[in-house]
Amino acid sequence: MHPSIIVQKYGGSSLSNEKKISDVAKKIKKSLKSTDKLIVIVSAMGDSTDELISLGKSFLSDDPEDNNMRELDQLLSTGEIVSASLMSMALKKINVKSMSLSGSQAGINTNAIHGSARISSINTDLIYKYLQDKDVVIVAGFQGISEQGDVTTLGRGGSDTSAVALAAALNAEQCEIYTDVQGIYSADPRLVKNSKLIKNISYEEMLEMASLGAKMHPRSIEIAAINSIKMKIKHAAKEGDGTTLMKDNDLMEIRNAVTGIPTSTGVSKITLNNISDKPGIAASIFSPLSAKGISVDVIVQTASSDRKTNLSFTVDDKDVNLCLNELKEKNIASNKNIKTEKGLGKVSIVGTGIQNQPGYAARMFQILAKKNINIEMITTSEIRITCIIKEENLSKAASALHDEFIV
Amino acid sequence: MHPSIIVQKYGGSSLSNEKKISDVAKKIKKSLKSTDKLIVIVSAMGDSTDELISLGKSFLSDDPEDNNMRELDQLLSTGEIVSASLMSMALKKINVKSMSLSGSQAGINTNAIHGSARISSINTDLIYKYLQDKDVVIVAGFQGISEQGDVTTLGRGGSDTSAVALAAALNAEQCEIYTDVQGIYSADPRLVKNSKLIKNISYEEMLEMASLGAKMHPRSIEIAAINSIKMKIKHAAKEGDGTTLMKDNDLMEIRNAVTGIPTSTGVSKITLNNISDKPGIAASIFSPLSAKGISVDVIVQTASSDRKTNLSFTVDDKDVNLCLNELKEKNIASNKNIKTEKGLGKVSIVGTGIQNQPGYAARMFQILAKKNINIEMITTSEIRITCIIKEENLSKAASALHDEFIV
Repeated sequence: MHPSIIVQKYGGSSLSNEKKISDVAKKIKKSLKSTDKLIVIVSAMGDSTDELISLGKSFLSDDPEDNNMRELDQLLSTGEIVSASLMSMALKKINVKSMSLSGSQAGINTNAIHGSARISSINTDLIYKYLQDKDVVIVAGFQGISEQGDVTTLGRGGSDTSAVALAAALNAEQCEIYTDVQGIYSADPRLVKNSKLIKNISYEEMLEMASLGAKMHPRSIEIAAINSIKMKIKHAAKEGDGTTLMKDNDLMEIRNAVTGIPTSTGVSKITLNNISDKPGIAASIFSPLSAKGISVDVIVQTASSDRKTNLSFTVDDKDVNLCLNELKEKNIASNKNIKTEKGLGKVSIVGTGIQNQPGYAARMFQILAKKNINIEMITTSEIRITCIIKEENLSKAASALHDEFIV
Repeated sequence: MHPSIIVQKYGGSSLSNEKKISDVAKKIKKSLKSTDKLIVIVSAMGDSTDELISLGKSFLSDDPEDNNMRELDQLLSTGEIVSASLMSMALKKINVKSMSLSGSQAGINTNAIHGSARISSINTDLIYKYLQDKDVVIVAGFQGISEQGDVTTLGRGGSDTSAVALAAALNAEQCEIYTDVQGIYSADPRLVKNSKLIKNISYEEMLEMASLGAKMHPRSIEIAAINSIKMKIKHAAKEGDGTTLMKDNDLMEIRNAVTGIPTSTGVSKITLNNISDKPGIAASIFSPLSAKGISVDVIVQTASSDRKTNLSFTVDDKDVNLCLNELKEKNIASNKNIKTEKGLGKVSIVGTGIQNQPGYAARMFQILAKKNINIEMITTSEIRITCIIKEENLSKAASALHDEFIV
């Protein structure tokens, strides 16, 4: 018989100094009242991962073929080991039986794709053995070990994935993600005055709402969904119920069709006019951009005349120059037919209730029209409708949509 | 057939920033001209171990029974992993085939005494396997792994021991210790103007001369002596032959009887007058001091009358108050019979030639007398004669002894 286990994960902003680590240790001790055993996954303290990356960058060679990614992973993994061992010491100081483990010691096996490894299996025997003597086992997040015995990391936000994967492997009662916000909000509180904390959200909605409140690693939400793991997102230092993630079916009865109005800023639109409308043209444009690490978001193609077409897409403001240079260098476009528009934003309505229900898009466009907001581009998914608008109109747009669909 | 291997170790002061790491990488690349393969052991960058200790100290509980030492070892080991991975990246950048290993990945097995573990065995299969593809394998110094799978550390200066133990296990041609001094000096250059670099020194002499120039971990010299490993101590950033450690026999013909005049400062003498002269009295005095972590150096007992005796010993200046408190608390002595003298220093003559050769002590005392320097205490070993004198006389004494015995 295995003990009842709760998995908790604490982010770097909740562990940025000794005082905060002590406070979290007290919170962990209190949590032991409601479960036999706790597995605690920690991120690196505050900005320490960024500091390690900046150290490592001095030595990154330009050759993408080299395997410096292995060394970078070895380097970055130390950040989480530091916070894990400090957390264990803080717990022992208040008489909690605990120990810390690196990802490798915790038996977290991954594939060998350094920098964005995927967890392949977890050898839970090790943790169960340690749990015989200890009430809390701290595991360094964000990392594992490859079959070759090399340290790997799971990518930005990978500690979320460590937590959810451990919760799945250990059959934990629930997985609690502690962060520096109260949970997931129905809209960005800085833009929408009467935004409110969402009590319950489905995994699918959560994937679409990453920009609202706690930014979760998408992979972690996928694993939670597949394994039906009950997840809670809560503030590390404040009281409150936070947001609970659950299956769509369990939510149907208890909430609105639209769950949240996510927004994001810093979007640029690039339009290529009069390009040849022939098979393979999209690939010839976007493959070189992807090779340069430029992430393209919304893509819209409009018919034109004479076997020519116009193509618009959005990228991050910061990638615009890199993108333009690449397009010119590869002779895909010239100054004559490129148009760039910076300072745009995205506003969406998200909710599983949107699915198979017509009328939401029309209502959304009407609201924006009523507010005199011009829509630059539109894109949709099963449970989301997104409009690209001017950044300066984001607050007005999100507030109006929130009034219409949520409150 | 194994390849020819040289082991190099670089100390933290030679790795304190990106520029220094790059410079060492170039030096390593150059070294590859004179050997097939290199094993490079690195310490933590600059003061990073002290920074980790200060982080950890906030959480050290007062209970010596707890096992926070395990967590502290897990914490401290990250410092060397950081510099190892950075060094490997710096080498790859200049096209040297390299990889970094933690102590655990390098197969360095230790006992489970956290904070001062001893290496029990090294699984060289792992390193030999990696050396098939790589020309340089970087190993994080100062650390290993216990049979239980816990990370251990070898104590201050433990990277020297990592280097020598690896040199022994891999049957390396030689072990080169790179540091921030040119080698071992015949006297402290700050005290003795015409002190000079020692070209060759025996392991035994080196143990007695730790205070001169490079401070080596004593355990590392023991391992080198047992395995007859040819060791060189050199400056990490400057050219020069440095100091070579070798067996006494190989040295007999080529040098003076006295090799060096080590000195040290910050010595305090504590004298207990009129204590009972009975069996066990020394143990009853020194056991409690040792339990408090006070290191007692020179001990001199003089006969007195009426079954009473006087006992003098030296401790570090910084330990005096702790020592006095402990002696009073344990009722070993009272204010009445304790005398303390701070501000003393040690000056020694060291050389295997002293062994079995009478007259050195007499000559030493005569030189000091001629300079009007009062000797407070005397102590000797096989190859060393040490006098405790006033700190203010150290430079005068060491210079006069250097003139007599060395130049």
